[in-house]
Order: sequence, then structure tokens, then C-alpha cells
Amino acid sequence: MIAYSGEKYVGWQIQPEGISIQGTLEECLSRLFNEGPRVIGAGRTDSGVHALGQVAHFDAPPRYSCSDLSHRLNALLPKEIRILETSEASEDFHAQRSALSKIYHYHLWLDEIEDPFLQPYRFRPRYSLSLEKMKEASRYLIGKRDFTSFTNLGSSAKSHVRTLIRIDFVEQPGGVRLEFEGDGFLYKMVRNLVGMLLEVGKGRYMPSSAAELLARADRRCAPPPAPAHALFLVKVNYP
Amino acid sequence: MIAYSGEKYVGWQIQPEGISIQGTLEECLSRLFNEGPRVIGAGRTDSGVHALGQVAHFDAPPRYSCSDLSHRLNALLPKEIRILETSEASEDFHAQRSALSKIYHYHLWLDEIEDPFLQPYRFRPRYSLSLEKMKEASRYLIGKRDFTSFTNLGSSAKSHVRTLIRIDFVEQPGGVRLEFEGDGFLYKMVRNLVGMLLEVGKGRYMPSSAAELLARADRRCAPPPAPAHALFLVKVNYP
Repeated sequence: MIAYSGEKYVGWQIQPEGISIQGTLEECLSRLFNEGPRVIGAGRTDSGVHALGQVAHFDAPPRYSCSDLSHRLNALLPKEIRILETSEASEDFHAQRSALSKIYHYHLWLDEIEDPFLQPYRFRPRYSLSLEKMKEASRYLIGKRDFTSFTNLGSSAKSHVRTLIRIDFVEQPGGVRLEFEGDGFLYKMVRNLVGMLLEVGKGRYMPSSAAELLARADRRCAPPPAPAHALFLVKVNYP
Repeated sequence: MIAYSGEKYVGWQIQPEGISIQGTLEECLSRLFNEGPRVIGAGRTDSGVHALGQVAHFDAPPRYSCSDLSHRLNALLPKEIRILETSEASEDFHAQRSALSKIYHYHLWLDEIEDPFLQPYRFRPRYSLSLEKMKEASRYLIGKRDFTSFTNLGSSAKSHVRTLIRIDFVEQPGGVRLEFEGDGFLYKMVRNLVGMLLEVGKGRYMPSSAAELLARADRRCAPPPAPAHALFLVKVNYP
């Protein structure tokens, strides 16, 4: 299990340019082992997105115990990436494919005055929001749906059908967090959903637009994504 | 009342080089008013030190109400500096001289694995510490004492006598915070005291060394300061 502050990274996945979390991990592993094993993550967090409980697997040469491996990796990794736990997985475990569900949190700051220490991790809308309308809209998104309107055009996923298990609005100091749990999330899906919910909260869209946008299955009809810096991959659940 | 993350600043006080909190505030005030009033802070936090409740005063031309002034300043200030509250003070109020006591917190991270989000604000010693010995040493520091050994040589203060009211060790997730309350603190005093307490915790000094170092009244005898990034000015108390 891995926690990271994604602020300075191009995201989880290795990109032609910029530094990724995956690439940083693979580099450290190749320093520990002669060969550099490929690291597969449960969720491909975007550029600027953080993680409290990302999960990844790789084939480790049998050189170190799990706790030793955690320790050695943390000694090599930059401080904003921490291995929280390492454990042995069964042969058929796959960090992404074996996941039952993933939980993402999106943090909205609603107080007038920002917190200088939390502001890198909160999005503060510069307009007033109706949380009631946002909650109403969010109900249309729950269930097994085609999320084509909420994934970016470049998405390589074969199917855009995913099951959203819940969207909870949880009050917290300074604002509210939106908790998303689903069996899987498409590229930029959480940020695109939050972007739409914000437009509803602002009054520019009706809550029922959520259903209409889903039905249109066209990304070009939906509002832009919410900023990345307030999004956290919190937990990945396995059987 | 002002909160700030001091990471990128040379400290509270205006310096010949680098950007200070005081200088940043004065610049914003001079954009609001034609003249640029001098801002006097309660505590001159060092480079890299943070504040949750710094207090400052200045002579404001009677142009804006207090809440309006807060709002306008926050619109001009960088996000890592926030005005939490503005209020009208009596003619004889002086942010530093009127203060009865100040509270600083120093955050030690003791868990093996750092938190990627808190690590910019925690000091993690790379050795094991006896908190019991540190507590024992801290008792010698309480009361009205000459803190010459714990202020830096360049200190311009006329007297090095200050009253330390308490040093409390408070457990918190990941470690412990040291709460210092005193009627005033000399330049680098909290960091120098923590530096000495860490040497005691490590076993390099006896707890009673705290008393001996105070008695010597010589900065050159005492251990180096603890790092700045884990120190917060938390509160300033007034009559």
C-alpha cells in the first residue's frame, strides 16, 4: 500500500515526459534488484492527484522480506511517496483486476478563509453552491451506467460501463468531501463527475441533467473536470 | 490574526534578501492604502517557521471596515498567508509588548513511516529518543531564567531573561508535540531548546545538563537548533 502527494508528478502512469509515481517506484526497484520489475497500480491517478491507499503489485525476486523491502524502498523514495505496507500476494493477484471497489475522496473548501496548510489539497469554488442540488444530481449517477460522457476522449477503455456504488457528501472542517465508491473508474471520471456536480450546485444545470448527460454518452456535452489537487485515491478493496 | 506556512519565506521580519511575511503584508497594505503602514508582529518567527495564530498591528487609515480589510488583504495575499481575523485595537495596543504569553508547538514525528502530507511540518529524528529523559530535562527550564545559552549570538535583545510557563509533551498521531508557553521568546530560543532536548533524548546529554547549560549563559556550549520546519507559533495571549 502506497501513499503519495501527487503535486509534483505527472500522475501514476509512466509518461514520455515528466516524472510519474510508477516510474519513480520502478527506478527504486531497479536499484534494489538488478532487473527492474514492472509495477502495476490499482488506479491510474492523474497528474496532481494524491493517494492515501494506492495498491500496486510486482514480481519481486526473493531477496528481501516484506518489511525489509518496505524499509529499503522508503529509504530510496522521495519523501512525498511512502510505502505504508508490503505483503506477499497470491500468484493470481492483480492490483487492478482483482479490485472489488475503489474509493476516491474529493475535498471542497467552503469556508470564506482558506487554511494555508490544507489549501494545496482542497478546491475552493468561488461561487456559492447548493449541496442539496448536488446530492440530488448524484443520485442519478449511482448504479451500473455508461459513463462515456464523463471520461476523456482519449480513454483507451473498451467499455465505459462502470458501477458507482455510492457518492456520499461528508461534512468536515472547512467544507465537505465527496466520497465516490465504484467497481472501477475511467480516465478522469471522478474529476469529470465533480465538475458536473459543481455546475449543478452553481445552478447552471438542473440536477436531472446528470441523467441526461449519461444518456447522451458524449463527453463533449458535459462540463469540464474539477481540478486535480483536491482528489485522493483513498482505498482499494479486494476479496 | 494571521496564519501562514513559512516554508518559502525568510521568516516574519523584513530581511535585506528574500521574501518575508512582514514585507509581503506591508506590500499588500501599501496597495490598499496610498501610504504603506509598518506592520508589527507579536513574534518574529524564523525562516521556515509557520504560524497558526500570529498577531500583528498597524495604523490603518480609516478607509475600510475590519471585515472588509480582511477580505481585501486575503484577495491580495498569496494563499499560504491568510488573515483569519481583523479587529480594532486600542491606541496603546502593541502586538509584541502587550502580549502576556506566546505558545509555540514543535512537532516530532516518531513513527517509522512518514506521512507524505504532514512531513513538511514534522521533524523525524533518525535515532531513538527517551521522551522521559526529555521531560525530565524540560523541568529545569521552567520559570524565570537567563536563556543566553539558548539564543543565537546575534540576538539584539537587551535582556536574555524570560519566563517559561510550561513545556508540555502531548501525544498525537505519528508522534508527539512539545508545547512551549512563555512570556516571550528570544531569537531561535524554541529551536535551540528543542535541539538540546533532542540531545538529552538521544542520551548524549544528561537531563540535568539543561540546568548546567542555563547556568553557563554561553550559547557556544549548547547543542545546535532543531530544524525550523516543525515549529509553529500557535497563539498569542493578551490581557
